[in-house]
Amino acid sequence: MKKLMILAAASGVLAALPAAAQFQKPEDAIKYRQSAFTVMNYHVARIGAMVQGRTPFDAKAANDSAHIVAVMSTLPFSAFGDGTDKGMPHRAKPEIWKDGAKFKAAADKMAAEATKLETAAKTGSLDAIKAVFGGVGGSCKACHDDFRAERFSN
Amino acid sequence: MKKLMILAAASGVLAALPAAAQFQKPEDAIKYRQSAFTVMNYHVARIGAMVQGRTPFDAKAANDSAHIVAVMSTLPFSAFGDGTDKGMPHRAKPEIWKDGAKFKAAADKMAAEATKLETAAKTGSLDAIKAVFGGVGGSCKACHDDFRAERFSN
Repeated sequence: MKKLMILAAASGVLAALPAAAQFQKPEDAIKYRQSAFTVMNYHVARIGAMVQGRTPFDAKAANDSAHIVAVMSTLPFSAFGDGTDKGMPHRAKPEIWKDGAKFKAAADKMAAEATKLETAAKTGSLDAIKAVFGGVGGSCKACHDDFRAERFSN
Repeated sequence: MKKLMILAAASGVLAALPAAAQFQKPEDAIKYRQSAFTVMNYHVARIGAMVQGRTPFDAKAANDSAHIVAVMSTLPFSAFGDGTDKGMPHRAKPEIWKDGAKFKAAADKMAAEATKLETAAKTGSLDAIKAVFGGVGGSCKACHDDFRAERFSN
């Protein structure tokens, strides 16, 4: 299959992505971003369970998870290039491609909150994690509210 | 839904997993491990393209990808607990649960090779990456040969 230089063809804000973040076909980009979100979501939830007292605080596990969240937070944005609104079922709203600047701001906010969480988790203090965890959850929710559909497409 | 303590109920080698690596239901574990492999595969391929000269060498991109590969390499194993052979379509062979020791050795080998790749990528030298990249690919292939089915179940 001819390699689609999806991101090279992207317009506006989404064109400012690393040239290396290219996918063979839109389906690959969709799978990649969904996978990064799946891994991130699991590890946010794992820390969330400690924050809420549903599981015992484990400083090492929290630290590991926070690092994974921080790493994952930087990945999905590159996989929303033009042409990746179709290819397989997904929940990305058309607004992502209509208002790329707003979407990028939301993605940057999420990554910034994830970095704060990582820094907090490194201290080994549950209180430090609690102090920033709401910001992480808030950035997830804000982006979901604006850019994630209730149902999968197709 | 009642929380299934999948891994707490695991037997043999797979029981020796971190207690924190628990999933609400088998489907969650399957999605998680597939997602980790999807992200890992993409970043191995991204480095592979540089190793093979199909894309220009970008030391920072290679370093970023190698770190992601190393982080991802530690994740999937925890999601193969007993009971996670069913729940949604997957390609995990029954041998994973029949010979947990062999599967764990394959997973450990992959993680060790990923660590070598990360160390090599930190040097910023393509030659250093080339020297270890075959070991990464070999560990992927060996595990796929033994433990990954050609087709999805269900």
